[in-house]
Amino acid sequence: MEPRVARFSVSLDKDLLRQLDRMLREKGYRNRSLAVADMVREHLVEHRQGNDDRESVATVTLVYDHHKSHVQEALTELQHRFRGSIVSTLHVHLDHHNCLEVLVLRGKASEIRALADRLIAAKGVKHGKLTLTTTGKDLPA
Amino acid sequence: MEPRVARFSVSLDKDLLRQLDRMLREKGYRNRSLAVADMVREHLVEHRQGNDDRESVATVTLVYDHHKSHVQEALTELQHRFRGSIVSTLHVHLDHHNCLEVLVLRGKASEIRALADRLIAAKGVKHGKLTLTTTGKDLPA
Amino acid sequence: MEPRVARFSVSLDKDLLRQLDRMLREKGYRNRSLAVADMVREHLVEHRQGNDDRESVATVTLVYDHHKSHVQEALTELQHRFRGSIVSTLHVHLDHHNCLEVLVLRGKASEIRALADRLIAAKGVKHGKLTLTTTGKDLPA
Amino acid sequence: MEPRVARFSVSLDKDLLRQLDRMLREKGYRNRSLAVADMVREHLVEHRQGNDDRESVATVTLVYDHHKSHVQEALTELQHRFRGSIVSTLHVHLDHHNCLEVLVLRGKASEIRALADRLIAAKGVKHGKLTLTTTGKDLPA
Repeated sequence: MEPRVARFSVSLDKDLLRQLDRMLREKGYRNRSLAVADMVREHLVEHRQGNDDRESVATVTLVYDHHKSHVQEALTELQHRFRGSIVSTLHVHLDHHNCLEVLVLRGKASEIRALADRLIAAKGVKHGKLTLTTTGKDLPA
Repeated sequence: MEPRVARFSVSLDKDLLRQLDRMLREKGYRNRSLAVADMVREHLVEHRQGNDDRESVATVTLVYDHHKSHVQEALTELQHRFRGSIVSTLHVHLDHHNCLEVLVLRGKASEIRALADRLIAAKGVKHGKLTLTTTGKDLPA
Repeated sequence: MEPRVARFSVSLDKDLLRQLDRMLREKGYRNRSLAVADMVREHLVEHRQGNDDRESVATVTLVYDHHKSHVQEALTELQHRFRGSIVSTLHVHLDHHNCLEVLVLRGKASEIRALADRLIAAKGVKHGKLTLTTTGKDLPA
Repeated sequence: MEPRVARFSVSLDKDLLRQLDRMLREKGYRNRSLAVADMVREHLVEHRQGNDDRESVATVTLVYDHHKSHVQEALTELQHRFRGSIVSTLHVHLDHHNCLEVLVLRGKASEIRALADRLIAAKGVKHGKLTLTTTGKDLPA
């Protein structure tokens, strides 16, 4: 039996689509669907890591345009709601538009991931990345 | 000026699509287009890391035991030597022994990687991770 | 090369000297010379703040309620406008409403003061304080 | 009855003494003892503020030469000992020698002051300054 296939449509900024197509040519993909499937599988693998109750330490790196529709308000509101997991946030003004924020998180892996997911998914965030690390306690040097 | 948007369609295995949709719900995305855009930007950021003279922004997350043989001295000496690429460093005291340090780096990708490699390889560092991100300049939201 | 040291004698009211010695014990100084050297350096740092084109380093500490009418937007806009003087900003979420921000500034004293004045005067800032310090260059230890 | 006077001797770096004498001339002091008495009184006034159990928030700004005899080791050891009061520490590499550190502290005013005093008094710290601020809770905007 062949794998059954579903179709859906996606809207992207035109510039972003052009940059995607150039990358797919450079990487040698034959069509966008194969590339999207690879990206989805990679994110599923990452998503399933560290979804437990162990005490974890992590950093989240975010880049966003602070002029875009309320992105900073949304990020701040989220951070105050989850502030129990946030140690502190370092903010660097990259240029007139772009901000870099690095959050240091500490708490249950599942809560850290929940907050990181929401921050990275927030509208206006151009790039976001969760880096799970260790409290160092059980790890010999 | 309105952002110009392009539509295209994607074919995915039905099971993979179901798993994607569950992940997007868990991550808090409101629709697939926003999620695909985030994946595309993340892969663009990674794809461009090969271009070594491009201006890059990165964070390095380090966990180490500050009591271990001169590890802090070594990290500080390294950081002062490469200080042209370091915007600043956030330090969190995890417990009596363990320190978390997050560095924000900006400069040529090749120099950032050279510094990150040395920091992560330093004796006494238990875990180190380089997260390359973007200056945000050429990446549409 | 050994650090060259000079000795001189000081006359103080006996009561004042007793109070000084009690304070030095409470502060953890091992001898009066180290304490006097610290006082002298602190007063030198303050005394030189009058020289407006000298390169200076400073921190600004701000506490504000991020729910209040656009205070965060205003602070971010200001910081991006003056970003040439800002090294980075550390943000701590104090409770559901209150934020602490510490900015590290570097540049001409006059520009640092201009930015600090605007940040501290911004509507919604509950407490703000400029701490001018030194680049350390011309100050013996 | 005349106030009884006590004499004691102080050792200072020769360059620092020269800079002190120039400042005293510029400020119009007739001799070093009068200037030292003024500094001592100013520090006593500051020392007696905020020495209680109220919950406080503060920043400490430190500038030091990381090459000087174990200053960084001493500061890190102190910070780990008092880590219950330290939210996090932002570190900026000013030049090949000089470091700026800003600590965000939260806890009882008396404990914050005790830690700040020890950090500022540590051998090798060129300039240190405690800025007491507020949790924002009882302070209307």
